[in-house]
Amino acid sequence: MAIKKPKFKLRTKKPSKLHKTMGKAPGTVTYTGQREGGQSLLSVINYDENTFNIQEEIGLNEIDFHQKSPFTSWIDVVGLSDELFIDQLGKLFQINPLVLEDIANTQQRPKIDEYENYIFGVFKMLYLNENQEIVSEHLALILMESSVIVFQELKDDVFDGLRERIKTKSGRIRTRGSDYLFFALLDAVVDNYFVILEHVNHRIEVLEDEVYDNPTNDVVHRIQELKKDVLKVRRQIAPVKELVGRLLDSESSLITKDTKLFLRDVQDHCIEINESLQIYREMSMSLMEMYMSNMSNKMNEVMKVLTIMASIFIPLTFIAGVYGMNFDNMPELHYKHGYPIVWGIMVAMFLGMLIYFKRKKWL
Amino acid sequence: MAIKKPKFKLRTKKPSKLHKTMGKAPGTVTYTGQREGGQSLLSVINYDENTFNIQEEIGLNEIDFHQKSPFTSWIDVVGLSDELFIDQLGKLFQINPLVLEDIANTQQRPKIDEYENYIFGVFKMLYLNENQEIVSEHLALILMESSVIVFQELKDDVFDGLRERIKTKSGRIRTRGSDYLFFALLDAVVDNYFVILEHVNHRIEVLEDEVYDNPTNDVVHRIQELKKDVLKVRRQIAPVKELVGRLLDSESSLITKDTKLFLRDVQDHCIEINESLQIYREMSMSLMEMYMSNMSNKMNEVMKVLTIMASIFIPLTFIAGVYGMNFDNMPELHYKHGYPIVWGIMVAMFLGMLIYFKRKKWL
Amino acid sequence: MAIKKPKFKLRTKKPSKLHKTMGKAPGTVTYTGQREGGQSLLSVINYDENTFNIQEEIGLNEIDFHQKSPFTSWIDVVGLSDELFIDQLGKLFQINPLVLEDIANTQQRPKIDEYENYIFGVFKMLYLNENQEIVSEHLALILMESSVIVFQELKDDVFDGLRERIKTKSGRIRTRGSDYLFFALLDAVVDNYFVILEHVNHRIEVLEDEVYDNPTNDVVHRIQELKKDVLKVRRQIAPVKELVGRLLDSESSLITKDTKLFLRDVQDHCIEINESLQIYREMSMSLMEMYMSNMSNKMNEVMKVLTIMASIFIPLTFIAGVYGMNFDNMPELHYKHGYPIVWGIMVAMFLGMLIYFKRKKWL
Amino acid sequence: MAIKKPKFKLRTKKPSKLHKTMGKAPGTVTYTGQREGGQSLLSVINYDENTFNIQEEIGLNEIDFHQKSPFTSWIDVVGLSDELFIDQLGKLFQINPLVLEDIANTQQRPKIDEYENYIFGVFKMLYLNENQEIVSEHLALILMESSVIVFQELKDDVFDGLRERIKTKSGRIRTRGSDYLFFALLDAVVDNYFVILEHVNHRIEVLEDEVYDNPTNDVVHRIQELKKDVLKVRRQIAPVKELVGRLLDSESSLITKDTKLFLRDVQDHCIEINESLQIYREMSMSLMEMYMSNMSNKMNEVMKVLTIMASIFIPLTFIAGVYGMNFDNMPELHYKHGYPIVWGIMVAMFLGMLIYFKRKKWL
Amino acid sequence: MAIKKPKFKLRTKKPSKLHKTMGKAPGTVTYTGQREGGQSLLSVINYDENTFNIQEEIGLNEIDFHQKSPFTSWIDVVGLSDELFIDQLGKLFQINPLVLEDIANTQQRPKIDEYENYIFGVFKMLYLNENQEIVSEHLALILMESSVIVFQELKDDVFDGLRERIKTKSGRIRTRGSDYLFFALLDAVVDNYFVILEHVNHRIEVLEDEVYDNPTNDVVHRIQELKKDVLKVRRQIAPVKELVGRLLDSESSLITKDTKLFLRDVQDHCIEINESLQIYREMSMSLMEMYMSNMSNKMNEVMKVLTIMASIFIPLTFIAGVYGMNFDNMPELHYKHGYPIVWGIMVAMFLGMLIYFKRKKWL
Ligand SMILES: [Mg+2]
Ligand SMILES: [Mg+2]
Ligand SMILES: [Mg+2]
Ligand SMILES: [Mg+2]
Ligand SMILES: [Mg+2]
Ligand SMILES: [Mg+2]
Ligand SMILES: [Mg+2]
Ligand SMILES: [Mg+2]
Ligand SMILES: [Mg+2]
Ligand SMILES: [Mg+2]
Ligand SMILES: [Mg+2]
Ligand SMILES: [Mg+2]
Ligand SMILES: [Mg+2]
Ligand SMILES: [Mg+2]
Ligand SMILES: [Mg+2]
Ligand SMILES: [Mg+2]
Ligand SMILES: [Mg+2]
Ligand SMILES: [Mg+2]
Ligand SMILES: [Mg+2]
Ligand SMILES: [Mg+2]
Ligand SMILES: [Mg+2]
Ligand SMILES: [Mg+2]
Ligand SMILES: [Mg+2]
Ligand SMILES: [Mg+2]
Ligand SMILES: [Mg+2]
Ligand SMILES: [Mg+2]
Ligand SMILES: [Mg+2]
Ligand SMILES: [Mg+2]
Ligand SMILES: [Mg+2]
Ligand SMILES: [Mg+2]
Ligand SMILES: [Mg+2]
Repeated sequence: MAIKKPKFKLRTKKPSKLHKTMGKAPGTVTYTGQREGGQSLLSVINYDENTFNIQEEIGLNEIDFHQKSPFTSWIDVVGLSDELFIDQLGKLFQINPLVLEDIANTQQRPKIDEYENYIFGVFKMLYLNENQEIVSEHLALILMESSVIVFQELKDDVFDGLRERIKTKSGRIRTRGSDYLFFALLDAVVDNYFVILEHVNHRIEVLEDEVYDNPTNDVVHRIQELKKDVLKVRRQIAPVKELVGRLLDSESSLITKDTKLFLRDVQDHCIEINESLQIYREMSMSLMEMYMSNMSNKMNEVMKVLTIMASIFIPLTFIAGVYGMNFDNMPELHYKHGYPIVWGIMVAMFLGMLIYFKRKKWL
Repeated sequence: MAIKKPKFKLRTKKPSKLHKTMGKAPGTVTYTGQREGGQSLLSVINYDENTFNIQEEIGLNEIDFHQKSPFTSWIDVVGLSDELFIDQLGKLFQINPLVLEDIANTQQRPKIDEYENYIFGVFKMLYLNENQEIVSEHLALILMESSVIVFQELKDDVFDGLRERIKTKSGRIRTRGSDYLFFALLDAVVDNYFVILEHVNHRIEVLEDEVYDNPTNDVVHRIQELKKDVLKVRRQIAPVKELVGRLLDSESSLITKDTKLFLRDVQDHCIEINESLQIYREMSMSLMEMYMSNMSNKMNEVMKVLTIMASIFIPLTFIAGVYGMNFDNMPELHYKHGYPIVWGIMVAMFLGMLIYFKRKKWL
Repeated sequence: MAIKKPKFKLRTKKPSKLHKTMGKAPGTVTYTGQREGGQSLLSVINYDENTFNIQEEIGLNEIDFHQKSPFTSWIDVVGLSDELFIDQLGKLFQINPLVLEDIANTQQRPKIDEYENYIFGVFKMLYLNENQEIVSEHLALILMESSVIVFQELKDDVFDGLRERIKTKSGRIRTRGSDYLFFALLDAVVDNYFVILEHVNHRIEVLEDEVYDNPTNDVVHRIQELKKDVLKVRRQIAPVKELVGRLLDSESSLITKDTKLFLRDVQDHCIEINESLQIYREMSMSLMEMYMSNMSNKMNEVMKVLTIMASIFIPLTFIAGVYGMNFDNMPELHYKHGYPIVWGIMVAMFLGMLIYFKRKKWL
Repeated sequence: MAIKKPKFKLRTKKPSKLHKTMGKAPGTVTYTGQREGGQSLLSVINYDENTFNIQEEIGLNEIDFHQKSPFTSWIDVVGLSDELFIDQLGKLFQINPLVLEDIANTQQRPKIDEYENYIFGVFKMLYLNENQEIVSEHLALILMESSVIVFQELKDDVFDGLRERIKTKSGRIRTRGSDYLFFALLDAVVDNYFVILEHVNHRIEVLEDEVYDNPTNDVVHRIQELKKDVLKVRRQIAPVKELVGRLLDSESSLITKDTKLFLRDVQDHCIEINESLQIYREMSMSLMEMYMSNMSNKMNEVMKVLTIMASIFIPLTFIAGVYGMNFDNMPELHYKHGYPIVWGIMVAMFLGMLIYFKRKKWL
Repeated sequence: MAIKKPKFKLRTKKPSKLHKTMGKAPGTVTYTGQREGGQSLLSVINYDENTFNIQEEIGLNEIDFHQKSPFTSWIDVVGLSDELFIDQLGKLFQINPLVLEDIANTQQRPKIDEYENYIFGVFKMLYLNENQEIVSEHLALILMESSVIVFQELKDDVFDGLRERIKTKSGRIRTRGSDYLFFALLDAVVDNYFVILEHVNHRIEVLEDEVYDNPTNDVVHRIQELKKDVLKVRRQIAPVKELVGRLLDSESSLITKDTKLFLRDVQDHCIEINESLQIYREMSMSLMEMYMSNMSNKMNEVMKVLTIMASIFIPLTFIAGVYGMNFDNMPELHYKHGYPIVWGIMVAMFLGMLIYFKRKKWL
């Protein structure tokens, strides 16, 4: 059984585009991700307890934006490779250029920075694609006094339930301000991390069974892929716990004490997730241990078969060889019962070896 | 000996029900555990130094609840899948919806949150079922001024000794308030963790002996199950130490200084437990090391048998083969003592090899 | 060589008696150790710079105890299974029931708790028994204004040098108060930990030599026992460092600034001990590594012998086999020098293989 | 296949020159690097919003330096082995001798020290040479009120983009002071670390494929070189995060609040880099695991071939040997169909073994 | 190749003399090292900017010591086994007995304690002896207002460069007080640690090459010795960083702000050293990994040779065996070309196997 290249494709990593930012002045908006092309799409939901309206695919000039609007506005930007658009939007809302750079920089790790008039956060939406691979989408949120601006790379997201709740006035979302919207968005992102955890957990369980039943080299490869995925997911999820903790300690007037209760709930989930990731990490390391012990077990078994066969038949062959010699003077050859006696000796040796190996528990 | 599927069943993990909460508004009561069906059962024990009465299986409206009751009330709720009941009870006692969500969410890790009028805690009761498997039951406690509400999934619990002490007025429980009751409940939960530790310790000792006497592949599997159990137990127990520490530092008026002395005793036990878990973890890792070294030992032994048999008989067989050749002109064949001389040479070679292997200490 | 059960006895662990405390009210004195039977024995040493007297095996009522005695009293209690006695003594000295519970609970880890009128400490005396096994004895100390109460399980202890110094007025002990006595007791306990460290160090050195000279399976077992002993010893010693640190930071009036200088010296020793334990831990892990590398070395050697023997003689046997065939028409058989030519070929092959293996450095 | 020395040269480490500083008074300028020879070259760029001029290869006396110049000056010193020059420059700018020593000491790890009139920083420029080896260049920066002095070992550096931006007035650099220049230099250094990370990442991916396809001993060596490179790079990059953090907390008047926003962006990048390095470290450890599991796989395969061949043919050879014996009285030899019957038996045994190994899944 | 005892002597560890201190009163001067015998030798250097004089091998009464001398005095004590001398010196300078105990206790780990009139420090001078073994010498320093007392075990030390600088007035030492002398002594000790690091680094590089070229069991032993040496060196060096940090934070009037700048430089070096030790530790662990992978590689190679030889010749021998049978009726034997046909078959099988193994890349 030759070791074959596994069928699953080693995820081809496209070269990072961080070099595109090299040498540029800090604060230059440069998209560093893989989802290029097209214009950014803008849509806005305005709501309060009694009002609800949506503007879809509008232009920047169509936003009617007031610092102190009576409504809460969810401003949604889809597509981050339209650097010019982001620049203009930044100017309209008076966003710091460094923030704009981070919005377009999909390599940016999760972060929360407080500015005077807004709070800026970067997170990663994680979900599974049709091939059950873990996909990460860059997400940037800006919390302002009466609005939240959401920047994402692709149209799909994890906020459908939330949109529904706003539309149908379910729960308390319509009675609260932009800080609760910010929380609700973050909560939806974090809730989706559990889907990823279940996926990882499932892969561990499948691999456990395979290591046990059929430990091929391909399994090793998949264990290693699992370990790398756990490392990558941890990197994108783990910081969120501390970031939410900082929000809870923040004295910004943008977040009410009431919303902090809800953020504490998100933090709870983050702790849970981090613990799970830690356990998955230890379990994936155990998988390799199991594999190695299984290998060494199999080797023992192979060697026992060889040793038993060789130990039984090599001495017998020697006996046969002796009486195949052509010396003139070999009296045994002429004994009447020489042949059956030799067979008797050989059978006795055979049985002796069998008993010996039985006693050693090799049989 | 082919590697067989072990007899013990790999614990089948039912799919998590966390997805049931996905997209719902925060604060929606959603039971995420496996013990579904049936209504929640409510019972109440009221006591003070001179009074003691029990109300069993009563309705919510039968609780006569006053914020400042002269008695201490132990309100017991069994069954958490009755979401409506928990909602109503929450309204009656003015409990925050996020707390109610956590009461029904059996995936919630241990936590303690202080609210204005109550302290909310989530813990895990751990015990062994009839198959000696570790079972975890979700437990939520709410400490109020003159009562403690206890939420559990199943009727059985670890509080029988405590109920007895209240009934028989043994110890100081009848002379103290709800904070002491809260402590006593927590103390009973933590005391039971020692049973789990003894169970784990026993499994380690059994495995140590098996690794030594009979290191089959099945043992590897059970070592890995042990490691996973230690990881899971640690996850449910480890946070308690820090949570109790936070209670000790809390300035809430709900917990008297006197009760804090007792909580410090619980914390002591938690430290002890965490240290034990750490040691069990290292011991379970050592088990794999021992297994691997034992395997490699056995392999050495197998190879020595093969090498000794082959090294002794292959050269002898060669000698016999030489004198089995059919050349016309092989003078040795016609020597008078050719045959016994060859036997002599072969015996000498045999003994020489034996001495060689004896010196190498392979025999 | 079959793997035999090692001669050294796997330390039989008697079942823990922690279950005896289960369900009891907190503060119930319950002995959880193995040294049961008999009454507690009480003796008292009173001293100041000019006075020295001993009362041995007295009753509780014979102690003449004043809160503010002019002497320093060393009150010694031997035997902790006499729960009634400890209860009575506790009442006499007004000790908190939780403290009394910890005095009798030999499972209690090292701790120091400050109360209003006394400081309570639990430590472990470690020493070697006649079989060179590490034995641990539970030790509880109560520091009061003019006395120290010492609770121990067995009569023997590590305080003989200290008793001598008090009796002979050597050093400064007779000129100082109870806090210095407390320090001196702790110092004696910690000094004895170095004996344990030397014992562990010696075992590591013996095992190092054995792993090198004679790496049997028994050695693996002893390495694992060593690792477990290091874990257990660390658990009983490691907390002391931090406990002494807390005493140094304490603002209790029971400990003078002058005595703190001496406690700092004890802390120094504790740091030293913890570092040694850490190093022993890493060294015992290296032992397993060395064992495995030695095993793999031996395997290589065994395989080389097999490979050399088989590679040399199997081809030669083939040659002999060829000329043992019985074809009618095998011209070589009738050559005049056929037989010596074949011998020549076989010797040449033999030498060729020897040179080949020599070049590979396998010989 | 003998193990050959790998073609890639183990990087020859020239002996460290730290001994040159031994015994010298602290503050003695001593170059400890490998890039010796030649004089230091001095050049200066002066700029403000409207002005821009360059002085190249000037003498120390040609600098027209005023503590409070209206321009921002970038003073560039190339070559650090000219100890006398550094001493003189130090005196001109009133730099502490300990700083001068650190400028010339290329062994100095990254650091930032604040002095009364300047902030001194040491960093490492990392880049790849023509052989794709990671090269490290010592870089020292001194931030003064209106100038930054840059010390580097070689003419090439990572600041060309920055020089271009100053010259072409692109970005905000021309409108800001020396603290922004200091930031911009540091930003360029840190941006280049990403190139090193990509190089390391690429090597890991190449090695992953090789471990899978062709796991030779050479691969082990390259994995170990990789691990060492990750260790070395981490050592030179990791401290930067904390150093920038200290700058952010600094109260020095040399750094404006506005520039701190930009430094926070650099810190962000440093966190990202440290996380990547941590992941690369774990991945390089996994490579060894994969290698070992692949080796053990291959061994299993080799042993199976041997066991199958030997187990099939050794018994057959025994049968043939039996009927090659020369006993007078062997009835089977004279059976009419003796020969084909024996062939039948041998074929049956052959097929039996094949089926056996097929069932074991060894074929 | 039997495994022989390595030639290098396992460092014989003389039994620790810590037991000598057991039971003694705290503060009893007891030498616990190996360099016993002889009297302590006392010498003094007095200097200020204009004065310089040396008194060698003087008696205690010859020191002319004033608390507030106008000179700086370097009081050097060589030999620590003269317990009486240390006691007397302690009384003369009013040193705390616990300090005197630590001066003579060569087992004392590095420490710095501040007392009212002096600062006491313990360090370890590390250097290589003529056998290139790492030797550690106990060093105690007492910094007083105008003097530093230096206690060392042996005459040789690492301060010759410093003595020269004082004598020749080079650097700033003659213009500064006792705190600068204290720094200069510590700086010389720390500078010498780099020699030890280079020695360790060299051993790692030698072992790397040996693991690659000639991985014998002896190499394993030397890797383990290396790991132990790194552990021991780390233990003696690592605490210094934190101790210097504490000096920097100290508010003692004995250390001027100016000297702290220099101490910060020492701390810098300590950080560097600790990082190197960490890296050496990881590299020495990698050495074992490389050894094991190399072993498994060699095993693979050995097994391939065996498998190839056996797989080729065992089937051929079977064929020869078949035609060596003595059946009456074996038609092939009488074919005219029977013999060459069988040779043809055997050559074909031989070539077939060669091609098979070639394809498998085993040849
Ligand atoms: Mg840039
Ligand atoms: Mg940037
Ligand atoms: Mg999207
Ligand atoms: Mg949520
Ligand atoms: Mg499973
Ligand atoms: Mg919750
Ligand atoms: Mg939700
Ligand atoms: Mg929730
Ligand atoms: Mg229950
Ligand atoms: Mg308890
Ligand atoms: Mg045992
Ligand atoms: Mg207790
Ligand atoms: Mg209890
Ligand atoms: Mg208790
Ligand atoms: Mg005792
Ligand atoms: Mg002591
Ligand atoms: Mg040794
Ligand atoms: Mg001391
Ligand atoms: Mg192995
Ligand atoms: Mg120096
Ligand atoms: Mg220096
Ligand atoms: Mg320096
Ligand atoms: Mg350069
Ligand atoms: Mg940058
Ligand atoms: Mg790949
Ligand atoms: Mg940024
Ligand atoms: Mg002592
Ligand atoms: Mg001492
Ligand atoms: Mg010396
Ligand atoms: Mg120095
Ligand atoms: Mg090298």
